[in-house]
Amino acid sequence: MNFTLNILGTASALPIVNRHPSAQVLDVRGRLFLIDCGEGAQIMMRRMHLSFLKLDRIFISHLHGDHCFGIFGLLSTMGMLGRTAPIHIYAPEKFSSILKSFMEHFGDGLRFGIEHHPLVTDEPQTVFSSKSLEISAFPLNHRIETFGFLFREKTPAPNIRKDALEKYGLTLAEIGALKRGEDITRDGATIPNGELTYIPYIPRSYAYCSDTAPFPELAQWVEGVDLLYHEATFPEEMTELAAATAHSTTVQAAQCASAARVGKLLIGHYSSRFPDAGFFLDEAKKIFPNTELTEDGMKIDLPLCHGER
Amino acid sequence: MNFTLNILGTASALPIVNRHPSAQVLDVRGRLFLIDCGEGAQIMMRRMHLSFLKLDRIFISHLHGDHCFGIFGLLSTMGMLGRTAPIHIYAPEKFSSILKSFMEHFGDGLRFGIEHHPLVTDEPQTVFSSKSLEISAFPLNHRIETFGFLFREKTPAPNIRKDALEKYGLTLAEIGALKRGEDITRDGATIPNGELTYIPYIPRSYAYCSDTAPFPELAQWVEGVDLLYHEATFPEEMTELAAATAHSTTVQAAQCASAARVGKLLIGHYSSRFPDAGFFLDEAKKIFPNTELTEDGMKIDLPLCHGER
Repeated sequence: MNFTLNILGTASALPIVNRHPSAQVLDVRGRLFLIDCGEGAQIMMRRMHLSFLKLDRIFISHLHGDHCFGIFGLLSTMGMLGRTAPIHIYAPEKFSSILKSFMEHFGDGLRFGIEHHPLVTDEPQTVFSSKSLEISAFPLNHRIETFGFLFREKTPAPNIRKDALEKYGLTLAEIGALKRGEDITRDGATIPNGELTYIPYIPRSYAYCSDTAPFPELAQWVEGVDLLYHEATFPEEMTELAAATAHSTTVQAAQCASAARVGKLLIGHYSSRFPDAGFFLDEAKKIFPNTELTEDGMKIDLPLCHGER
Repeated sequence: MNFTLNILGTASALPIVNRHPSAQVLDVRGRLFLIDCGEGAQIMMRRMHLSFLKLDRIFISHLHGDHCFGIFGLLSTMGMLGRTAPIHIYAPEKFSSILKSFMEHFGDGLRFGIEHHPLVTDEPQTVFSSKSLEISAFPLNHRIETFGFLFREKTPAPNIRKDALEKYGLTLAEIGALKRGEDITRDGATIPNGELTYIPYIPRSYAYCSDTAPFPELAQWVEGVDLLYHEATFPEEMTELAAATAHSTTVQAAQCASAARVGKLLIGHYSSRFPDAGFFLDEAKKIFPNTELTEDGMKIDLPLCHGER
């Protein structure tokens, strides 16, 4: 039941020693979701012991090379490993012609389907839903069409409280109704579901926002997530350059986290001007204390918090 | 006056931890030549302190992804660094449509020209020549059109022997003639150039052969080079698989080196089945003792050997 974010790359446009371009893998209960795929993502996946077999959905925020040039090697490697299971790529519309060119030149021998799900939305939109997880995409504010992604566990079915089982001698039909979230009725009186059940665990959530200039709606779209990754390409003193390039500063990332009242803020996508981004953390923490710097190879685990029993 | 080979990647099709796909940089007197450009080449160049500014010629042996997927990130990075000097890419003909697709999708903002020199030859052919260096391409024997490359320093102009200067009291005109390689005449008698001059240094040479099955002409085409890189994807026991995939074994690489009487053999492009390729060396050395295993990050220097003074 893990929910673990793996940081493959923390560089912005220019990779430097020990900083690969943007790529992350969110591991939700053993199923892997790749978020952006900068050059070297497949090598970092191997280094971090993340199996290609467990990956079938890839999310590309935008079509700048530092967020997608690793896709070619990754797809080729999957092909050479004999993959037959289809792979789903959520990416801006224009990715289709990139994929077409890739298939023309390098697609021979790939024995799996690649389905491109074009991202076209100007507000949060669900793009994937399973029994336990919902993934939505929302627009960011960058120089080209760019999307953020929100991964949210679904609220689990309630469990029956042990004391309620004993007190009311619940029937199987009543237990079924409670599991479906319904109240039950005894002698004409309603007993609310919440008195008899508890949520077995608190659903976890992660939002990924790279690359973007600040904009008003963002905090509301990622409100209350447990973990927010927000790019912080520049320190505060470079606010003008951040605006000119449609990026964010440390302070702006922290302001978004604060306005959205998230659990924890991760920053990354550091300008190559700053091989040591230590002071980025100090700047962000002044606004939002629970901030952490990402580094290539880092794992951030969101442990399961059990509900009231 | 250095002549140094930098190994950026030694993996075959599937990269593994600590083995990037194929890429090398030959540094000839401070000028860099990139040979193949697998994914991660730009990151390895940074790690090995190889300046993008000193690189203006790239040689792509063939259009399998593990030999060229790094080109997109490298070109983009050069663009972001503000490069204006043109870059020359020597690659098979089909590279032109890959380049076209790249430029369509990712070429905005590149302020330098990219000239593709298509490789079309069935025998060794000079593709580049400068005052001191000649580079030729020759076909290899792989599943798709593939080329090897030979880098050879030109024979330097002869220096005048000090003892000859004194003995003959050479005039400026005679010195000029000797520098051009001509003999001189005194009182009707010819004094051969070789008696009055010496070659200041022995020209150095490097040949790159990846990927290829063995074929008869190859040893002759790389005959006598100081340094030969020859792929050895498989150990001897996998000779059949090597043939089926148009690759070479350790023994076949060493046989080529032996037949070509090269100075030193480097092997690489190891199958991912063998994270430890130590026994590859033992197999090759039985045939050609002066063999070395390449590893990512390795530098091999060919020192300048002075001629007779």
